[in-house]
Amino acid sequence: MVRMNTYSPVRVGIAGATGYSGVELLRHLAKHPGVDVRLAMGSSASEGKRIKSLARIWDAPIEQLDVDRLATETDAVFLALHDTMAAEIGPALAARGRRVFDLSGAFRLRSKDARTKWYPKTPDVEVPVTYGLTERYREALAGSGAGSLVACAGCYPTAALLSLTPLVAAGLLQPGVIIDAKSGVSGAGKSPTERTHFSEIHGSMAAYGVFAHRHAAEIEQELCMDVTFVPHLVPLDRGILETIYARLQPGVDAEAIGRALSDAYANSPFVRLTGSDLPEIKHVAHTNFCDIGWRVNQPGGQLVMVACIDNLVKGAAGQAIQNFNVAYGFDETAGLL
Amino acid sequence: MVRMNTYSPVRVGIAGATGYSGVELLRHLAKHPGVDVRLAMGSSASEGKRIKSLARIWDAPIEQLDVDRLATETDAVFLALHDTMAAEIGPALAARGRRVFDLSGAFRLRSKDARTKWYPKTPDVEVPVTYGLTERYREALAGSGAGSLVACAGCYPTAALLSLTPLVAAGLLQPGVIIDAKSGVSGAGKSPTERTHFSEIHGSMAAYGVFAHRHAAEIEQELCMDVTFVPHLVPLDRGILETIYARLQPGVDAEAIGRALSDAYANSPFVRLTGSDLPEIKHVAHTNFCDIGWRVNQPGGQLVMVACIDNLVKGAAGQAIQNFNVAYGFDETAGLL
Amino acid sequence: MVRMNTYSPVRVGIAGATGYSGVELLRHLAKHPGVDVRLAMGSSASEGKRIKSLARIWDAPIEQLDVDRLATETDAVFLALHDTMAAEIGPALAARGRRVFDLSGAFRLRSKDARTKWYPKTPDVEVPVTYGLTERYREALAGSGAGSLVACAGCYPTAALLSLTPLVAAGLLQPGVIIDAKSGVSGAGKSPTERTHFSEIHGSMAAYGVFAHRHAAEIEQELCMDVTFVPHLVPLDRGILETIYARLQPGVDAEAIGRALSDAYANSPFVRLTGSDLPEIKHVAHTNFCDIGWRVNQPGGQLVMVACIDNLVKGAAGQAIQNFNVAYGFDETAGLL
Amino acid sequence: MVRMNTYSPVRVGIAGATGYSGVELLRHLAKHPGVDVRLAMGSSASEGKRIKSLARIWDAPIEQLDVDRLATETDAVFLALHDTMAAEIGPALAARGRRVFDLSGAFRLRSKDARTKWYPKTPDVEVPVTYGLTERYREALAGSGAGSLVACAGCYPTAALLSLTPLVAAGLLQPGVIIDAKSGVSGAGKSPTERTHFSEIHGSMAAYGVFAHRHAAEIEQELCMDVTFVPHLVPLDRGILETIYARLQPGVDAEAIGRALSDAYANSPFVRLTGSDLPEIKHVAHTNFCDIGWRVNQPGGQLVMVACIDNLVKGAAGQAIQNFNVAYGFDETAGLL
Repeated sequence: MVRMNTYSPVRVGIAGATGYSGVELLRHLAKHPGVDVRLAMGSSASEGKRIKSLARIWDAPIEQLDVDRLATETDAVFLALHDTMAAEIGPALAARGRRVFDLSGAFRLRSKDARTKWYPKTPDVEVPVTYGLTERYREALAGSGAGSLVACAGCYPTAALLSLTPLVAAGLLQPGVIIDAKSGVSGAGKSPTERTHFSEIHGSMAAYGVFAHRHAAEIEQELCMDVTFVPHLVPLDRGILETIYARLQPGVDAEAIGRALSDAYANSPFVRLTGSDLPEIKHVAHTNFCDIGWRVNQPGGQLVMVACIDNLVKGAAGQAIQNFNVAYGFDETAGLL
Repeated sequence: MVRMNTYSPVRVGIAGATGYSGVELLRHLAKHPGVDVRLAMGSSASEGKRIKSLARIWDAPIEQLDVDRLATETDAVFLALHDTMAAEIGPALAARGRRVFDLSGAFRLRSKDARTKWYPKTPDVEVPVTYGLTERYREALAGSGAGSLVACAGCYPTAALLSLTPLVAAGLLQPGVIIDAKSGVSGAGKSPTERTHFSEIHGSMAAYGVFAHRHAAEIEQELCMDVTFVPHLVPLDRGILETIYARLQPGVDAEAIGRALSDAYANSPFVRLTGSDLPEIKHVAHTNFCDIGWRVNQPGGQLVMVACIDNLVKGAAGQAIQNFNVAYGFDETAGLL
Repeated sequence: MVRMNTYSPVRVGIAGATGYSGVELLRHLAKHPGVDVRLAMGSSASEGKRIKSLARIWDAPIEQLDVDRLATETDAVFLALHDTMAAEIGPALAARGRRVFDLSGAFRLRSKDARTKWYPKTPDVEVPVTYGLTERYREALAGSGAGSLVACAGCYPTAALLSLTPLVAAGLLQPGVIIDAKSGVSGAGKSPTERTHFSEIHGSMAAYGVFAHRHAAEIEQELCMDVTFVPHLVPLDRGILETIYARLQPGVDAEAIGRALSDAYANSPFVRLTGSDLPEIKHVAHTNFCDIGWRVNQPGGQLVMVACIDNLVKGAAGQAIQNFNVAYGFDETAGLL
Repeated sequence: MVRMNTYSPVRVGIAGATGYSGVELLRHLAKHPGVDVRLAMGSSASEGKRIKSLARIWDAPIEQLDVDRLATETDAVFLALHDTMAAEIGPALAARGRRVFDLSGAFRLRSKDARTKWYPKTPDVEVPVTYGLTERYREALAGSGAGSLVACAGCYPTAALLSLTPLVAAGLLQPGVIIDAKSGVSGAGKSPTERTHFSEIHGSMAAYGVFAHRHAAEIEQELCMDVTFVPHLVPLDRGILETIYARLQPGVDAEAIGRALSDAYANSPFVRLTGSDLPEIKHVAHTNFCDIGWRVNQPGGQLVMVACIDNLVKGAAGQAIQNFNVAYGFDETAGLL
């Protein structure tokens, strides 16, 4: 069922509207046919400022973060905040009946142990939480209602899980999956740090967080399988490319991989299967698409998959809106094409 | 006179060894045949750390800044510090007999009014100060002695002045010179700020400091002429390209420009005149060269000059060492080729 | 008058659909509410290929260029071809009654002498030609009809002319305008050359075409004034930033500049005036906006303006569609926001 | 034995002096204390040209390629040519008594089958061939004489083999090694192609040559072990980073890895072991260093190694000179620091 245009628009608030994901939320929601953006809030430092790149698209000044106003003046709230702040605000808003779409990692891990390790500020919550990887949780998202919280999937996990979950579900892979992930710098957030200084990254490249990145826990939760996950920072702004290595079960070939993926994404407007023609970041930049390609070395059954997304769109703001669309019964692509 | 190798090496200290210019100083001085780097000092935060990119070139840990040790354990000190810190330390070291080569702007402006405006923390000093644009002040540098201070020229002024001073001196230009300057991001220093965040610069470009950059005062001091100076930040790490616009006096042509420059730089190993073949940043990156090209539109007498340097070498560390070489009677290119 | 949605859509053809501007045309026209893209044609080499980045947006294979089919199966044709090919095809299509929107430079110059010099393959044509800088030629565009040719403005001229024409028209400037232009590499086209090799541009920057760029002739034609125009290639993909230098007439100040610009663009949805807050390329990338800022140094009356556009959108495909919108009576922003 | 300075310098020729590796050869050999560069030759197109970036370093014009002159006027020849041309010229020069240092892949593979597949133009040769990975073949290089050919190791294999050979030799790894390699664009050579166009790479990233790159054969030859090798092109100019995945044999830990590497490279001036502090490209750019770091996930025994080199120096020109130094008895670092 697709929501009718005759409905009154959904009143939406954005908390964290000045960060990289927040600006993308505003850019897309401002033109969403079923949305009325009522509140765009940032930190006190950004209060009263306008977002220059959005002039003529969203001209209102940024307001100071105010949970009470979000709870009373909106129907749905997008949180584009640091984990600790989302951990505090998200449950409060849901408890007051808002539908919360949280872009942070605070509520993604279901195991209390894992949460304690990676997101120690996240409280135990009473409200229902849905993991927001749209293509894998459409039914749960469609069934979520007022007072629920959608923990939108992380950027690295989105590309990894869209590639791997259909294959794992079909039992096509041997254990020992390796994910070599490369991300643009916007994934590190807007706060200036030594690592995000232009001169440290231009002409360079480095691995980081080896054996210690919380997105590994998120991937393993959804795959129910251990993985080796090594992220790298590459000298570009937007985009993730993941090269995934796995051994196939005996008898599995490239065609079987293709069938499993085609079946899984037959009705998914944002997953594009490129077959043996491997994807590139520039084909997905500034879009909500996830492009997935694969090759198999036979005999030996070595699978190499490559998946690409824009970390700020399908890896953050775009997927949050896609989740919102499914939750509210809009066309899944509304505001996103 | 070129200093003999039989002399004992000059004992050198570096204050600010962990910044971008400081690392370049270390890299070059470590292989300088007449130098013994005794002290490489940084802020307290960097104490004990090693500079990874210099492993096998300079392996000693960075020490904490200590003016007393610099004054007693070295002959010459290079200051690669913020202006305010250089303003404090430089005169103290010179007063104790060290030769100080200051890469900051603290002591470049001779007019007290200009200094008060652009470098308010700079004290009046008794010690002799030489403006360190090597090619224009070789005699003064050669005559400077113990207890003197060399205020090494700024990065933007170096390219502008090497291009313009011979032409202004020969009376070839009309008033109204315009300098459109483009700099890589390392020129903004190593401290992470919103402006130096990779994602703010990648795929972008902007002017800054229009009518309000202190390097304009430095250029005007040396040219004795008003200029319009507009710097821009471009998405690259190292290098400055300046496009300079001027009207020629009647009768002056491209050949006359070439003659004035050739005469001025006949004995300058680091100035390369490229004629009508305009220079590019990549030809000077990681070198101490300043490349200068020019074209003239006749009739009309519109001159367009293009000058390129590496802002960290000829625009900072390299020129400081070149000044040091002249001051100590080494070959001007020692440690720099 | 804004065209009604009840009209049947305009049948559109694109010649040169695989170049950088051609892909942008397809991307935008595919979602234009009043357009039915009937033909997307390329060179024979691209026949049958699909444009990977447009999968799910435009999935049809590229067809081989066929003037006859363009003339019979479409109402309007966008030409995103090299000048020489556009010079041949454009008049033929117009003569057969198509409305032609030419993105090349072939028909921009009105003076036969200038055309002979810069576009020697351009024939004399009988069909009416409109210069397609939307904001300056809206009436002529709205009055153009079947069998006419719109010579869409060049990328560099678009930024320069939107900045300067209101000021020149109001008599605010002295002669001697200088335009220091910086362009991303997509402006050089898709054909691989030594100059567009990644390694020649990354970490570098250079001026080119000094006193010999045909866009200077285009700017001078529209301003009725000589200018000094120096383009540079900068290490980014999309975007132009122009820094414009002019002396103001006595008594003119920054406010007068602002008034002239505000008056000129009061009803222009794609010109954003940023005042003394100078624009940056990243704020206009992937949009059809032209951002213009300015500062004045008083006394002296030195004006510095900065204008930014995306060379592939407002500098090419976007402006062509904007011209199409005005010519057909659509809302000027249709397909462009 | 280190060669004395009293020897007369080695007369050297360079064939292919205008490509990216060729320019690096010239840059380094021009300052090599034991070398007299007699001939710098390129294709006919480059004849008479000078290399702008080497002005004041190497000012002679490039001569046209002339095998006869190389054979009669030099002692040693560096070949920085395409594989097919090196396959033809290399043996001819060696047969005439020159020592040939070939930077191409033509002679790297010992198996005739592998050669036929990957380098079909390579003839069977009578002259002795040494594989030029300096750190692994020092004795063979030192024993090579007049009329021999050194097949300098490829860029990707250099980083992979320096990391893996000590571990494989010590039996520390299980089968199933994966090498995820990321290279800057200069590795694709100077010829402009669609793949090396700036706009195709800026802001993007892609895998290429999956299961079909001849460097995999070279790595497997030296390791005597199958590997999965996936190269990627990243948006930077110079540098390779390889992330290597392997399972350790039972009982092997990070310390054992460290010991094997330390033992192997105790006397290797250009291998820097960084331990658990993983290397970055910028620390090796413009140097002949190979930096290697590693981490182990216990239990499970998953090894992740990261190795970085500059593809044009340690991966090409620098290693060729290092091989030359060992072959002639110079200090291994001559001309390279």
